[in-house]
Amino acid sequence: MSSQLFYEDITEGEDITPLVKQPTTTQLVMWAGASGDHNPIHYDKDFALKQGLPGVIVHGQLSGAFLGQMLTDWIGERGYLKKLSISYKGMNLPGETITCRGTVTKKCIEDDNHLVALKIWAEKPFGEKTLTGTAVVNLPSKG
Amino acid sequence: MSSQLFYEDITEGEDITPLVKQPTTTQLVMWAGASGDHNPIHYDKDFALKQGLPGVIVHGQLSGAFLGQMLTDWIGERGYLKKLSISYKGMNLPGETITCRGTVTKKCIEDDNHLVALKIWAEKPFGEKTLTGTAVVNLPSKG
Repeated sequence: MSSQLFYEDITEGEDITPLVKQPTTTQLVMWAGASGDHNPIHYDKDFALKQGLPGVIVHGQLSGAFLGQMLTDWIGERGYLKKLSISYKGMNLPGETITCRGTVTKKCIEDDNHLVALKIWAEKPFGEKTLTGTAVVNLPSKG
Repeated sequence: MSSQLFYEDITEGEDITPLVKQPTTTQLVMWAGASGDHNPIHYDKDFALKQGLPGVIVHGQLSGAFLGQMLTDWIGERGYLKKLSISYKGMNLPGETITCRGTVTKKCIEDDNHLVALKIWAEKPFGEKTLTGTAVVNLPSKG
Protein backbone atom coordinates (compact mmCIF):
# COMPACT_ATOMS: atom_id res chain seq x y z
CA MET A 1 0.00 0.00 0.00
CA SER A 2 1.28 3.46 -0.90
CA SER A 3 1.90 6.01 1.83
CA GLN A 4 -0.74 8.69 2.39
CA LEU A 5 -0.54 11.83 0.25
CA PHE A 6 -0.94 15.18 2.05
CA TYR A 7 -1.94 18.61 0.81
CA GLU A 8 1.51 19.95 1.62
CA ASP A 9 3.12 17.34 -0.69
CA ILE A 10 1.45 18.85 -3.76
CA THR A 11 2.80 21.54 -6.07
CA GLU A 12 0.69 23.35 -8.67
CA GLY A 13 1.68 22.20 -12.16
CA GLU A 14 2.90 18.77 -11.11
CA ASP A 15 1.88 15.57 -12.86
CA ILE A 16 0.19 12.93 -10.76
CA THR A 17 0.93 9.20 -10.86
CA PRO A 18 -0.47 7.84 -14.13
CA LEU A 19 -2.60 4.70 -14.37
CA VAL A 20 -2.05 2.36 -17.32
CA LYS A 21 -4.90 0.06 -18.38
CA GLN A 22 -5.36 -2.49 -21.13
CA PRO A 23 -9.03 -3.53 -21.05
CA THR A 24 -9.86 -6.93 -22.53
CA THR A 25 -13.00 -8.07 -24.30
CA THR A 26 -13.76 -9.98 -21.09
CA GLN A 27 -13.62 -6.78 -19.05
CA LEU A 28 -16.01 -5.15 -21.55
CA VAL A 29 -18.48 -8.02 -21.17
CA MET A 30 -18.20 -7.81 -17.39
CA TRP A 31 -18.75 -4.06 -17.58
CA ALA A 32 -21.84 -4.62 -19.78
CA GLY A 33 -23.28 -6.87 -17.09
CA ALA A 34 -22.34 -4.60 -14.20
CA SER A 35 -23.48 -1.35 -15.84
CA GLY A 36 -26.46 -2.69 -17.78
CA ASP A 37 -25.08 -1.11 -20.98
CA HIS A 38 -25.56 -3.96 -23.45
CA ASN A 39 -24.98 -1.98 -26.64
CA PRO A 40 -23.54 -4.60 -29.06
CA ILE A 41 -20.83 -2.18 -30.29
CA HIS A 42 -18.98 -3.21 -27.12
CA TYR A 43 -18.87 -6.97 -27.81
CA ASP A 44 -20.33 -7.92 -31.23
CA LYS A 45 -17.54 -7.34 -33.77
CA ASP A 46 -19.74 -7.85 -36.84
CA PHE A 47 -22.29 -5.40 -35.46
CA ALA A 48 -19.57 -2.86 -34.65
CA LEU A 49 -18.05 -3.11 -38.15
CA LYS A 50 -21.49 -2.58 -39.71
CA GLN A 51 -21.77 0.61 -37.65
CA GLY A 52 -18.58 1.86 -39.27
CA LEU A 53 -16.44 1.28 -36.20
CA PRO A 54 -12.98 -0.32 -36.40
CA GLY A 55 -14.19 -3.17 -34.16
CA VAL A 56 -15.69 -3.43 -30.71
CA ILE A 57 -14.94 -0.36 -28.62
CA VAL A 58 -14.50 0.25 -24.91
CA HIS A 59 -17.51 1.67 -23.02
CA GLY A 60 -16.81 5.39 -22.49
CA GLN A 61 -17.93 5.07 -18.88
CA LEU A 62 -15.43 2.27 -18.28
CA SER A 63 -12.60 4.53 -19.48
CA GLY A 64 -14.10 7.23 -17.29
CA ALA A 65 -13.97 4.85 -14.34
CA PHE A 66 -10.24 4.36 -15.03
CA LEU A 67 -9.76 8.12 -14.57
CA GLY A 68 -11.64 7.85 -11.29
CA GLN A 69 -9.42 4.96 -10.22
CA MET A 70 -6.28 6.93 -11.07
CA LEU A 71 -7.47 9.70 -8.73
CA THR A 72 -8.58 7.49 -5.85
CA ASP A 73 -5.33 5.49 -6.09
CA TRP A 74 -3.39 8.76 -5.98
CA ILE A 75 -5.19 10.43 -3.06
CA GLY A 76 -5.02 7.37 -0.81
CA GLU A 77 -7.36 6.25 1.92
CA ARG A 78 -7.63 9.61 3.66
CA GLY A 79 -8.26 11.64 0.51
CA TYR A 80 -11.71 12.35 -0.94
CA LEU A 81 -12.70 12.70 -4.57
CA LYS A 82 -15.02 15.72 -4.46
CA LYS A 83 -15.74 16.36 -8.15
CA LEU A 84 -15.13 14.47 -11.38
CA SER A 85 -16.17 15.80 -14.77
CA ILE A 86 -15.35 13.93 -17.99
CA SER A 87 -15.84 14.63 -21.69
CA TYR A 88 -15.66 11.83 -24.27
CA LYS A 89 -13.45 12.74 -27.23
CA GLY A 90 -12.53 9.45 -28.91
CA MET A 91 -12.63 5.70 -28.93
CA ASN A 92 -10.52 3.15 -27.13
CA LEU A 93 -10.24 -0.42 -28.36
CA PRO A 94 -9.88 -3.51 -26.18
CA GLY A 95 -6.29 -4.70 -26.08
CA GLU A 96 -5.03 -1.16 -26.65
CA THR A 97 -3.17 0.61 -23.86
CA ILE A 98 -5.05 3.48 -22.19
CA THR A 99 -2.86 5.78 -20.13
CA CYS A 100 -4.66 7.97 -17.60
CA ARG A 101 -2.86 11.15 -16.62
CA GLY A 102 -3.47 14.28 -14.58
CA THR A 103 -1.87 17.60 -13.74
CA VAL A 104 -2.48 19.73 -10.65
CA THR A 105 -3.93 23.08 -11.77
CA LYS A 106 -4.65 24.76 -8.42
CA LYS A 107 -4.44 24.37 -4.65
CA CYS A 108 -6.60 26.23 -2.20
CA ILE A 109 -7.86 26.00 1.37
CA GLU A 110 -11.59 26.65 1.81
CA ASP A 111 -13.33 26.29 5.19
CA ASP A 112 -10.54 24.05 6.43
CA ASN A 113 -10.84 21.83 3.32
CA HIS A 114 -7.53 21.33 1.57
CA LEU A 115 -8.58 21.25 -2.06
CA VAL A 116 -6.56 20.34 -5.13
CA ALA A 117 -7.94 20.90 -8.63
CA LEU A 118 -6.65 18.89 -11.57
CA LYS A 119 -7.02 18.50 -15.26
CA ILE A 120 -7.15 14.85 -16.21
CA TRP A 121 -7.18 12.90 -19.44
CA ALA A 122 -6.80 9.46 -21.00
CA GLU A 123 -4.58 8.94 -24.00
CA LYS A 124 -3.90 6.29 -26.61
CA PRO A 125 -0.40 4.90 -27.27
CA PHE A 126 0.48 7.74 -29.66
CA GLY A 127 -0.88 10.45 -27.39
CA GLU A 128 -4.35 11.01 -28.84
CA LYS A 129 -6.64 12.07 -25.99
CA THR A 130 -9.83 10.02 -25.81
CA LEU A 131 -11.12 11.52 -22.57
CA THR A 132 -10.53 14.90 -20.99
CA GLY A 133 -11.84 16.24 -17.73
CA THR A 134 -11.37 18.02 -14.47
CA ALA A 135 -11.44 16.90 -10.87
CA VAL A 136 -11.23 18.30 -7.37
CA VAL A 137 -9.90 16.26 -4.47
CA ASN A 138 -9.76 16.97 -0.76
CA LEU A 139 -6.52 15.89 0.89
CA PRO A 140 -5.54 15.56 4.52
CA SER A 141 -3.20 18.20 5.88
CA LYS A 142 -0.05 17.74 7.96
CA GLY A 143 -0.87 21.02 9.76
CA MET B 1 -51.67 -17.95 -20.30
CA SER B 2 -52.10 -21.50 -21.55
CA SER B 3 -54.56 -23.82 -19.86
CA GLN B 4 -53.20 -26.35 -17.36
CA LEU B 5 -51.99 -29.68 -18.72
CA PHE B 6 -53.17 -32.84 -16.87
CA TYR B 7 -51.73 -36.33 -16.75
CA GLU B 8 -54.81 -37.68 -18.49
CA ASP B 9 -54.22 -35.36 -21.48
CA ILE B 10 -50.95 -37.11 -22.34
CA THR B 11 -50.41 -40.03 -24.70
CA GLU B 12 -47.18 -42.03 -24.89
CA GLY B 13 -45.40 -41.23 -28.14
CA GLU B 14 -46.82 -37.76 -28.55
CA ASP B 15 -44.73 -34.70 -29.34
CA ILE B 16 -44.86 -31.83 -26.89
CA THR B 17 -45.15 -28.15 -27.80
CA PRO B 18 -41.80 -27.07 -29.25
CA LEU B 19 -39.99 -23.92 -28.20
CA VAL B 20 -38.18 -21.89 -30.87
CA LYS B 21 -35.32 -19.62 -29.82
CA GLN B 22 -32.93 -17.33 -31.66
CA PRO B 23 -30.35 -16.18 -29.12
CA THR B 24 -28.56 -12.91 -29.87
CA THR B 25 -25.04 -11.85 -29.03
CA THR B 26 -26.66 -9.62 -26.40
CA GLN B 27 -28.31 -12.63 -24.76
CA LEU B 28 -24.93 -14.40 -24.71
CA VAL B 29 -23.31 -11.42 -22.98
CA MET B 30 -26.17 -11.28 -20.47
CA TRP B 31 -25.80 -15.02 -19.89
CA ALA B 32 -22.05 -14.56 -19.33
CA GLY B 33 -22.81 -12.02 -16.62
CA ALA B 34 -25.60 -14.03 -15.03
CA SER B 35 -23.77 -17.38 -15.10
CA GLY B 36 -20.23 -16.14 -14.50
CA ASP B 37 -19.04 -18.05 -17.59
CA HIS B 38 -16.84 -15.43 -19.24
CA ASN B 39 -15.11 -17.73 -21.73
CA PRO B 40 -14.32 -15.40 -24.68
CA ILE B 41 -15.50 -18.01 -27.22
CA HIS B 42 -18.98 -16.74 -26.38
CA TYR B 43 -18.41 -13.07 -27.28
CA ASP B 44 -14.96 -12.41 -28.78
CA LYS B 45 -15.18 -13.31 -32.48
CA ASP B 46 -11.43 -13.02 -33.14
CA PHE B 47 -10.68 -15.26 -30.16
CA ALA B 48 -13.30 -17.80 -31.26
CA LEU B 49 -11.92 -17.92 -34.82
CA LYS B 50 -8.40 -18.48 -33.45
CA GLN B 51 -9.79 -21.46 -31.52
CA GLY B 52 -10.98 -22.96 -34.81
CA LEU B 53 -14.63 -22.15 -34.18
CA PRO B 54 -16.89 -20.70 -36.89
CA GLY B 55 -17.45 -17.61 -34.72
CA VAL B 56 -18.80 -16.97 -31.25
CA ILE B 57 -20.95 -19.86 -30.03
CA VAL B 58 -23.89 -20.13 -27.67
CA HIS B 59 -23.14 -21.28 -24.11
CA GLY B 60 -24.19 -24.93 -23.90
CA GLN B 61 -25.89 -24.27 -20.58
CA LEU B 62 -27.96 -21.50 -22.15
CA SER B 63 -29.25 -23.93 -24.79
CA GLY B 64 -29.84 -26.39 -21.97
CA ALA B 65 -31.89 -23.73 -20.18
CA PHE B 66 -34.03 -23.43 -23.33
CA LEU B 67 -34.89 -27.13 -23.02
CA GLY B 68 -35.84 -26.52 -19.41
CA GLN B 69 -38.03 -23.59 -20.45
CA MET B 70 -39.78 -25.72 -23.09
CA LEU B 71 -40.68 -28.20 -20.36
CA THR B 72 -41.81 -25.70 -17.75
CA ASP B 73 -43.86 -23.83 -20.38
CA TRP B 74 -45.48 -27.13 -21.38
CA ILE B 75 -46.32 -28.47 -17.92
CA GLY B 76 -47.85 -25.21 -16.73
CA GLU B 77 -48.06 -23.75 -13.24
CA ARG B 78 -49.23 -26.92 -11.53
CA GLY B 79 -46.68 -29.24 -13.13
CA TYR B 80 -43.24 -29.99 -11.66
CA LEU B 81 -40.02 -30.65 -13.51
CA LYS B 82 -38.58 -33.59 -11.53
CA LYS B 83 -35.52 -34.55 -13.59
CA LEU B 84 -33.60 -32.99 -16.44
CA SER B 85 -30.54 -34.61 -18.00
CA ILE B 86 -28.78 -33.08 -21.00
CA SER B 87 -25.88 -34.12 -23.23
CA TYR B 88 -24.07 -31.61 -25.41
CA LYS B 89 -23.61 -32.81 -28.99
CA GLY B 90 -22.91 -29.75 -31.09
CA MET B 91 -22.65 -25.99 -31.33
CA ASN B 92 -25.30 -23.35 -31.78
CA LEU B 93 -24.46 -19.92 -33.15
CA PRO B 94 -26.13 -16.65 -32.14
CA GLY B 95 -28.71 -15.56 -34.71
CA GLU B 96 -29.36 -19.18 -35.67
CA THR B 97 -32.72 -20.72 -34.85
CA ILE B 98 -32.67 -23.36 -32.11
CA THR B 99 -35.79 -25.52 -31.97
CA CYS B 100 -36.38 -27.41 -28.73
CA ARG B 101 -38.49 -30.55 -29.04
CA GLY B 102 -39.65 -33.43 -26.92
CA THR B 103 -41.55 -36.70 -27.16
CA VAL B 104 -43.36 -38.51 -24.36
CA THR B 105 -41.71 -41.91 -23.86
CA LYS B 106 -43.61 -43.26 -20.83
CA LYS B 107 -46.40 -42.50 -18.37
CA CYS B 108 -46.68 -44.07 -14.93
CA ILE B 109 -48.29 -43.46 -11.56
CA GLU B 110 -45.96 -43.96 -8.58
CA ASP B 111 -47.09 -43.25 -5.01
CA ASP B 112 -49.85 -40.97 -6.29
CA ASN B 113 -47.33 -39.06 -8.44
CA HIS B 114 -48.42 -38.81 -12.05
CA LEU B 115 -45.11 -39.03 -13.87
CA VAL B 116 -44.35 -38.49 -17.53
CA ALA B 117 -40.94 -39.35 -18.99
CA LEU B 118 -39.70 -37.66 -22.14
CA LYS B 119 -36.84 -37.60 -24.53
CA ILE B 120 -35.90 -34.06 -25.44
CA TRP B 121 -33.52 -32.43 -27.86
CA ALA B 122 -32.54 -29.15 -29.52
CA GLU B 123 -32.02 -28.99 -33.25
CA LYS B 124 -30.55 -26.61 -35.79
CA PRO B 125 -32.51 -25.40 -38.86
CA PHE B 126 -31.59 -28.49 -40.89
CA GLY B 127 -32.32 -30.95 -38.11
CA GLU B 128 -28.86 -31.51 -36.64
CA LYS B 129 -29.28 -32.23 -32.94
CA THR B 130 -27.04 -30.07 -30.75
CA LEU B 131 -28.46 -31.22 -27.42
CA THR B 132 -30.16 -34.46 -26.42
CA GLY B 133 -31.57 -35.46 -23.10
CA THR B 134 -34.28 -36.92 -20.96
CA ALA B 135 -36.69 -35.47 -18.47
CA VAL B 136 -39.35 -36.54 -16.01
CA VAL B 137 -42.25 -34.28 -15.10
CA ASN B 138 -44.98 -34.63 -12.49
CA LEU B 139 -48.39 -33.48 -13.71
CA PRO B 140 -51.64 -32.84 -11.87
CA SER B 141 -54.37 -35.42 -12.32
CA LYS B 142 -58.05 -34.86 -13.12
CA GLY B 143 -58.88 -37.90 -10.97
